[in-house]
Amino acid sequence: MAPRKSWVQYEPDSHFSLANIPFGIISTTDQPDTRSVAIAIGDYALNLATYSTSSLNVPSAIQALSSTFAQPTLNAFAAQGRSKTSEIRRILQEILTDEPSNEHASAKAAARSAKSDILIPFSSITLHIPFSIGDYTDFYVGLHHAMNCGRLMRGPGQELQPNYLHLPVGYHGRASSVVVSGTGISRPRGQILTAPGASEPVLDLCRKLDFELELGCFVAKANEMGTPVGVKRAFEEGLFGVVLMNDWSARDIQTWEMVPLGPFNAKNFGTSVSGWVVTMDALEPFLVPALQGDRPLLDYLQGDKESMVPDIKLDVTIETPAGTRQKVTNTTSRNLLFSFPQMLAHHTVGGCPFNTGDLLGSGTISGTERGSFGSLFEQTDGGKSMITIAEEPRTFLADGDTVIFSGVCGEEEYGMVGFGECKGTILENKTRMG
Amino acid sequence: MAPRKSWVQYEPDSHFSLANIPFGIISTTDQPDTRSVAIAIGDYALNLATYSTSSLNVPSAIQALSSTFAQPTLNAFAAQGRSKTSEIRRILQEILTDEPSNEHASAKAAARSAKSDILIPFSSITLHIPFSIGDYTDFYVGLHHAMNCGRLMRGPGQELQPNYLHLPVGYHGRASSVVVSGTGISRPRGQILTAPGASEPVLDLCRKLDFELELGCFVAKANEMGTPVGVKRAFEEGLFGVVLMNDWSARDIQTWEMVPLGPFNAKNFGTSVSGWVVTMDALEPFLVPALQGDRPLLDYLQGDKESMVPDIKLDVTIETPAGTRQKVTNTTSRNLLFSFPQMLAHHTVGGCPFNTGDLLGSGTISGTERGSFGSLFEQTDGGKSMITIAEEPRTFLADGDTVIFSGVCGEEEYGMVGFGECKGTILENKTRMG
Repeated sequence: MAPRKSWVQYEPDSHFSLANIPFGIISTTDQPDTRSVAIAIGDYALNLATYSTSSLNVPSAIQALSSTFAQPTLNAFAAQGRSKTSEIRRILQEILTDEPSNEHASAKAAARSAKSDILIPFSSITLHIPFSIGDYTDFYVGLHHAMNCGRLMRGPGQELQPNYLHLPVGYHGRASSVVVSGTGISRPRGQILTAPGASEPVLDLCRKLDFELELGCFVAKANEMGTPVGVKRAFEEGLFGVVLMNDWSARDIQTWEMVPLGPFNAKNFGTSVSGWVVTMDALEPFLVPALQGDRPLLDYLQGDKESMVPDIKLDVTIETPAGTRQKVTNTTSRNLLFSFPQMLAHHTVGGCPFNTGDLLGSGTISGTERGSFGSLFEQTDGGKSMITIAEEPRTFLADGDTVIFSGVCGEEEYGMVGFGECKGTILENKTRMG
Repeated sequence: MAPRKSWVQYEPDSHFSLANIPFGIISTTDQPDTRSVAIAIGDYALNLATYSTSSLNVPSAIQALSSTFAQPTLNAFAAQGRSKTSEIRRILQEILTDEPSNEHASAKAAARSAKSDILIPFSSITLHIPFSIGDYTDFYVGLHHAMNCGRLMRGPGQELQPNYLHLPVGYHGRASSVVVSGTGISRPRGQILTAPGASEPVLDLCRKLDFELELGCFVAKANEMGTPVGVKRAFEEGLFGVVLMNDWSARDIQTWEMVPLGPFNAKNFGTSVSGWVVTMDALEPFLVPALQGDRPLLDYLQGDKESMVPDIKLDVTIETPAGTRQKVTNTTSRNLLFSFPQMLAHHTVGGCPFNTGDLLGSGTISGTERGSFGSLFEQTDGGKSMITIAEEPRTFLADGDTVIFSGVCGEEEYGMVGFGECKGTILENKTRMG
């Protein structure tokens, strides 16, 4: 991969180098009520709705999608299919490169001469939820997370359920409460047991509010009901791009409700995703083998690249209400047991249909050491050990705490491919019941 | 409730008497590509999109919604709110009644004189999925079903999990595979264990394909994230109407996959709903107390009418490929432990937001005797006892079997309030893997 420099100036550690070109949905301070498709480059957004209809010698492939770029979500764009969306990203890279000449030299010259008009500083935009999400599925393929949780809940030697290594374990989540980074998360109320051994629940505010460090992946290509998507097609066409995802979790509500049908109100009060969607193309250079479970996989889950995962450095920072910050987690997405193409192949093997914009979550990503655990549940041994975060004692999150995820691939020499931030602040619950 | 007769002729046992007036989405043989809102009366549909724009002295409240009635789903109509949709149904009853005079006498006279133009025989319409469903949640509040399943899976004395009586247990389902009655259901493929005690799964066609007899309920009124819907408001405004629902289930896939996060591919290959949505108003005269669990309920789940359930006589008929039919289940929705308003109140107590058209499933409805069980899993003791259905041996469903649910309230003297049928045929899976 040759280093490629853009005529847009950015720091070497920028998440949004020329090698990235993620897509998102923005509004601007000038037009707060109009949402449209944009890309990020350095600290700027390029509004594709306005650019595609400008007089800047815009390539015809981009002009042709001007109405698609004027949509308030990425659904119509992603529904064009991977070959089209890949082509658009490649053309935009050609326009934004500093290399001396290329296929789109006139478009490049025009864009460059108008750069102060077309590049919108991040400080002047608001990012919105990138897709209209029909269905959201959360998997549980962070192997070490599953090991940690299994050990805390069932004890050593019984960490993993019998099916765990054979299939990407997952469950259906709640699409309506998926929100974009920056949205406040109100502390949920729910049925909880207030003392160990209690058998009568009370309705009260969650006392064990947690984050879960995940990746999310948006589906590009829909399949008909009854038609499985093989792992190869899932890899080549099925997926649009990846975001950071915080699967906020109410551990006390979860403990009481989740047997036998899985988490429900413990999760459906809110799920945060980062706003810029990093394409599968941008992540492909960073694919590495996923963790290997010690078992043969059934044919429909096997693949080469198809079973690999992007090597994303991930971290979690907590900022307390006092404004002090501390990084609490450093880990990597190498800690996944299955890839998103494998998840999609498994999800559709029985015929389940997908719509463009459907969201797959990876499950919590943890390493093997305490400082690499992707949830406070793991970091505090299920809430039994107090830890210190930014000079304050914590087992779980306090009102006013802000949780900030960051993720990035690559090396500065070649341009970083990052996700920016996925953050959310815990709000005091001001609703009254009864 | 006074008996009310319509000038539309129908048999006394018609599910669609004047007391019902369910809403649905139809297309006609004349215009197969145009979907619009309709009501059912007797064996006819009244297309509200065409009626509302006709010259038949249409009441202004109906005229005002003509663009809403021209939508391909009921979402925009239901989003008008319960007071508006109740008013429209009441006006339509006034127009369709045979009583001598009323507020809408001129509209009635005009409609009656044009009846051969505006009443479309059921044989000339196709019913479509009534709502665009954002999220679908399936509950598990059929007490006897939970008892039966708990006994089969965990043994006598451990039928119910500790939380079961305290909250409506539920889990998120797959919205994308909810289909209207009549849609074929392809036998799913999935990971299964082929022998008792096996630990290595194979990928194969489901051998234990089952139905589950449920009610579904569509949400009318959306709430914002973070704002619970109390049980009283859920009852008064939250819900639009009820359908029959078949939560098709692949028991072998389910057994292997469901611990610890609940059913997934075992359910997401298809869920069928009946096409006519019977309004909460139509069902209100038939409310009866739900089953009483032997426990105090937390305040947020308590109510009078709010905790009652409609008394719907339910049955299941199976038609084999040979064309022979047998009724295999007779039961009633009295066998529910919680009402839909209670389900919505619980679902939102932590702040989970709803959109109009979201679907709640009741969970399987079974009585206490074998002939009242709402699934073959229960009828065959978990697949261990062969039964005879329409002269053929069965433990679970065979390719070509058609499962037909029916449900009805009321007495002929006052007009029946029924759901018609929810049916689906098991199709041979013709996809090849690899």
